[in-house]
Amino acid sequence: MNLEKLFNPKSIAIVGASQEAGKVGTVIAKNILELGYVGKVFLVNPKYDQISDARCYHKLTDVEGEVDLVIMAIPAKFVASEIRENMGKAKNFVIISAGFSENGEEGKAREAELLQLAKEHDLNILGPNCLGFIIPKLNLNASFASGLPEAGNIAFVTQSGALAVALTDLAKAEKIYFSKIVSIGNKMNITETEMLDYLEKDEDTAVIGMYLEGIEDGVEFMKIASRVSKSKPIVILKAGKTERSQKAIASHTGALAGSDEIMNVAFRKAGILRAKDLEEFFNLIGFISHNKKMEKNKIAVITNAGGLGVLTTDAFFQKEIVLAELSEKTKQALRRILPEEASVENPIDLLGDAKEDRYKKVLQVIEKDSEISAIICLLTPQDQTPVEKIARVITRFNAKSEKTIVASFVGGKKVEKGIKKLRMDNIFNFAFPEGAVSVLDAYYRWNLKEDSHDENFSDNMNQGRKDHVAAFINFARAENRHALYFSESRKIMEMYGIKTVDAFEVCVGEALPVHNNFPVVLKVDSDAVLHKTDKQGLILNLKNQLELEMAFQKMRNNFPGARLIIQPMLGRDMEIILGIKKDANFGPVVVYGLGGIYTEVFKLAEMVIPPFSKEAIEKSLREGKLGFLFRGVRGQKTYNVSELAQIILALGEFSQEAGDVAEFDINPLLVYNNGNEAVGVDVKIII
Amino acid sequence: MNLEKLFNPKSIAIVGASQEAGKVGTVIAKNILELGYVGKVFLVNPKYDQISDARCYHKLTDVEGEVDLVIMAIPAKFVASEIRENMGKAKNFVIISAGFSENGEEGKAREAELLQLAKEHDLNILGPNCLGFIIPKLNLNASFASGLPEAGNIAFVTQSGALAVALTDLAKAEKIYFSKIVSIGNKMNITETEMLDYLEKDEDTAVIGMYLEGIEDGVEFMKIASRVSKSKPIVILKAGKTERSQKAIASHTGALAGSDEIMNVAFRKAGILRAKDLEEFFNLIGFISHNKKMEKNKIAVITNAGGLGVLTTDAFFQKEIVLAELSEKTKQALRRILPEEASVENPIDLLGDAKEDRYKKVLQVIEKDSEISAIICLLTPQDQTPVEKIARVITRFNAKSEKTIVASFVGGKKVEKGIKKLRMDNIFNFAFPEGAVSVLDAYYRWNLKEDSHDENFSDNMNQGRKDHVAAFINFARAENRHALYFSESRKIMEMYGIKTVDAFEVCVGEALPVHNNFPVVLKVDSDAVLHKTDKQGLILNLKNQLELEMAFQKMRNNFPGARLIIQPMLGRDMEIILGIKKDANFGPVVVYGLGGIYTEVFKLAEMVIPPFSKEAIEKSLREGKLGFLFRGVRGQKTYNVSELAQIILALGEFSQEAGDVAEFDINPLLVYNNGNEAVGVDVKIII
Repeated sequence: MNLEKLFNPKSIAIVGASQEAGKVGTVIAKNILELGYVGKVFLVNPKYDQISDARCYHKLTDVEGEVDLVIMAIPAKFVASEIRENMGKAKNFVIISAGFSENGEEGKAREAELLQLAKEHDLNILGPNCLGFIIPKLNLNASFASGLPEAGNIAFVTQSGALAVALTDLAKAEKIYFSKIVSIGNKMNITETEMLDYLEKDEDTAVIGMYLEGIEDGVEFMKIASRVSKSKPIVILKAGKTERSQKAIASHTGALAGSDEIMNVAFRKAGILRAKDLEEFFNLIGFISHNKKMEKNKIAVITNAGGLGVLTTDAFFQKEIVLAELSEKTKQALRRILPEEASVENPIDLLGDAKEDRYKKVLQVIEKDSEISAIICLLTPQDQTPVEKIARVITRFNAKSEKTIVASFVGGKKVEKGIKKLRMDNIFNFAFPEGAVSVLDAYYRWNLKEDSHDENFSDNMNQGRKDHVAAFINFARAENRHALYFSESRKIMEMYGIKTVDAFEVCVGEALPVHNNFPVVLKVDSDAVLHKTDKQGLILNLKNQLELEMAFQKMRNNFPGARLIIQPMLGRDMEIILGIKKDANFGPVVVYGLGGIYTEVFKLAEMVIPPFSKEAIEKSLREGKLGFLFRGVRGQKTYNVSELAQIILALGEFSQEAGDVAEFDINPLLVYNNGNEAVGVDVKIII
Repeated sequence: MNLEKLFNPKSIAIVGASQEAGKVGTVIAKNILELGYVGKVFLVNPKYDQISDARCYHKLTDVEGEVDLVIMAIPAKFVASEIRENMGKAKNFVIISAGFSENGEEGKAREAELLQLAKEHDLNILGPNCLGFIIPKLNLNASFASGLPEAGNIAFVTQSGALAVALTDLAKAEKIYFSKIVSIGNKMNITETEMLDYLEKDEDTAVIGMYLEGIEDGVEFMKIASRVSKSKPIVILKAGKTERSQKAIASHTGALAGSDEIMNVAFRKAGILRAKDLEEFFNLIGFISHNKKMEKNKIAVITNAGGLGVLTTDAFFQKEIVLAELSEKTKQALRRILPEEASVENPIDLLGDAKEDRYKKVLQVIEKDSEISAIICLLTPQDQTPVEKIARVITRFNAKSEKTIVASFVGGKKVEKGIKKLRMDNIFNFAFPEGAVSVLDAYYRWNLKEDSHDENFSDNMNQGRKDHVAAFINFARAENRHALYFSESRKIMEMYGIKTVDAFEVCVGEALPVHNNFPVVLKVDSDAVLHKTDKQGLILNLKNQLELEMAFQKMRNNFPGARLIIQPMLGRDMEIILGIKKDANFGPVVVYGLGGIYTEVFKLAEMVIPPFSKEAIEKSLREGKLGFLFRGVRGQKTYNVSELAQIILALGEFSQEAGDVAEFDINPLLVYNNGNEAVGVDVKIII
């Protein structure tokens, strides 16, 4: 998609331009005409010959030549025909009008028609049901929000137009400026993914901030985001974390909100910074907009109030960034310049009577400590505190320093001018110090880009194996089954190098043979009995032929048409569950966790989105919720991380090659720390 | 302590009053003389005869008659002698001077001397090392911070003077007003507990907010706080959550910061609202300052921006308050007054073009729904949004409504006046909606006062039992042991109704008798081997006399001077650990959690502070981390909550009666869900 002309148009037509007070068409026309946009503007409305002093065309076709961009603010029902009529004139449209997929069946049909048009004729359509967009640098406000923010380097893309209005107003007060503000509305044709793709090359944009309620095509989105995030930070506020808010969204823009946990995994994998709430989103884009790289996790804090230092220290709890331990050399240097009562431990307490010189000297000392990557400058406005002078010291220092500098001047009127000074010179001030710590931490973790650096992933499709799996599935389908037999699943797992427990099958009508290795387990192997434990399709620990025979009779009576299997009863050491979840957004996802009866109690489960490398999986395993298995708790022997990673890797491949599988799980997989090989006890493949 | 004259003085002397620019004594004198305080003021300084136009006394003794309050701003080393000289003149002192316990050994000695003086002569001393205090209603600024905030109903007590300055300035900007601002500094004589006791009866104070770095006497503090919190909300920002910040505190005011988790338990038990950070503290005191009771957890949200509604919905995740499900009646009423496209599900989306009338009508409809206890009014400043008129509608509604009303007008300049209007009329506005949800949730939970309503606790001391325990301990001490033998511990547990496993003792020099109930466990029973597993002082699952004999020989060789015990090997179903932790602040605390090898992995442990009732413990057990045991997971039989509660209750009594026990734990206690009685396998009593 080439959006160059859409966002940098030399000429714009406004269909539905008006002069009636309060009408959207009136506001847009005014915004485009009066705020300094220098391209050609054509107003279109059959009702008028003139709007203010400008000529008004009755039809867009009356305008001579091509138009780079057409903005439509007319009733939804006329939109498609209007576009159809004017496709020769323009390729780029902004549809402000509401009344599409967010609005019942009729609206959905209208949107489908519009999308069809766009696809057939290669049109770029922003919206429908959007606020429009604003490009401050071009003095172009192609929206029905008033005013023109100053130009900056943040592109803000939002699924909620109202939020754009509120945030722009807030941003103005905080001196945060934008390269582009784009309301994508129902994002029918131009989605978040297209916007990322376009903004990657947009020279005016250094940071991309997005408010999203849903993701359209998760796989494509991740592909593009992974690429873009390498050069530009992407900060996303993703709403719809809970079922309840997904309901609110459904009635709001009709987006399909995906499972929130997978969203976290996906964002991390794609190198996206996820803001936890509106405040953090705002802080993150504002902070990153002016920021340097931050590749170490050691932070220094300076303060003129001990209490604020303590609160800031608290905020480091469970963060990846840490308060730097100051070197003896640094402490000595600090002692030379600070009064005796000052603290030269981090947070460095400059005392309440600190003036700008003390701030300056301390900053200079910290600058020399190459271990420290960022400095948080705290200030409370004591009577003797020269707030603005200290702000100036900090901004001057920042201009030369390679370290990340942020501030938290806490107060009201007394710190107002100082904060303004900081903002003017590209230092972000946090209203409260805890916000500074939380944003630095998010930014540092993003700088690591650990998850998104998984470049050695294997995504080779093994066609032979894929065909083989398909053959098993087709065979089962031909027999009208919804699940594979264990013997089939076992063979498939073998192709992926996953060992499963031996099983002796007794088909319907067959008699029970004499068995000689006890104890054993007797199971029903049928798609009618998927939860074996619940339905008594599983009898454990049969110690001899007599017990087995009695169990066999019972099972035959209970499940007359079902195949039965006999397996050795294995020593259960540690149980793992593994599965593949098909996510509506991101496709198949491998889930793994601690098995056994307390699976739901402890909820030690994690997800990974294929493709991935074995190294990445091992890392996830070691650092994740199952990490205790590989560390050895209380002198226990450790479990084999490489073996489990290999199994997860194989399931990743399986998930890619087994498109027709509806549900899959291995429950349990028994793993051992005595050298025994891991073995799947039950494998369920539902088709 | 009677602090009436201290905080409502008819006459004040300032010792160390000065006219040198920048001196603390100069600022304080100016503050008291020039801001409208109507009592008598005496300036004292041997250097001057006059300061500005006022007479300056050379010595306090020169002042005629008694003085209600003396403020001292003189070097630390002169403070004690100055007080000693003037004890006849005054009983109430504010010591501004630093250089006491926060400042090395010399300072500590000075503070000890001062405290001694205060105790002997029944003086009230605020500080030392404090900012002073401010009583806006009296136009009395007895501090060295400048200015005078407007009078309100919040008392702010702080261990950090600098924070008082910053928060007062911030509060002024947000129209949050104070009854008293008190800097307690080193809180040598007037601690947080004395302040609570005083503020309970202070008619001007409706809400108490405290910034604390440590708690002086946890037991007394909890006693007073539990009482005060019944009539006035207490909001505490307790700094020093992490070890690191405890270090920062140590160099800051020398407070002993207690374990943070216990602090949470204690605050909950005392009915204290704990703010998670500075922002929430500020929001909480500001919100509560104007608030009504809130006894139901159902909340309505109204918004003119769908996106903001979705974000607010997200914020309800894992909260106690919930978005109300609107009744069909309410929805019908809403449908009648809202445009078709508006959402009548909660959050109620009034649409971007909503004017004040729509807000008004919707509020009136919600008012009728008695299930709803609070309304969050969201607003984004669209061009057509009459922000101030909507603010007026909300404040008028609030004046008549019984529901709790809060607002989150999101924006900058465009919402400024609206927010001011809200604040003037007692509605708290949150910069971001997530803050509103989090504060309402904290307030609702506090309103429940569940934990602090544990009135039926048992704190009867059983003197006979206490003496009996002491006798055991004395006996062991006489034998120079640091731990009780299992047989002794077993008898003690019996006194508390806790069953422990049978044990057959083999003392040093005794031969192994013939045993006839196998399997058994052989253990060493000695204070030299406390971690039996680590040191091989435990051999499990001995199946016959031969195995037992071999184990016995081995153990005798390894631990020649130790007593050995033989216990039956019990079926291990569920293991619980129980212990008593002695907290520096709150005394003995009973800790219980899931035992077994994954204790440290799952960290399912909780604490309770005695005294408590059995009902309260049962409730904690059911709702806490071990709750799954009593719910029955995956069809498992449930465990006996009453039995475990009884054991915890007994340990609470034991903790009160066994003052000399240094360490105590039962690990494991085996509990069963088959009707078997719980039994302690190992009991460790270290003295």
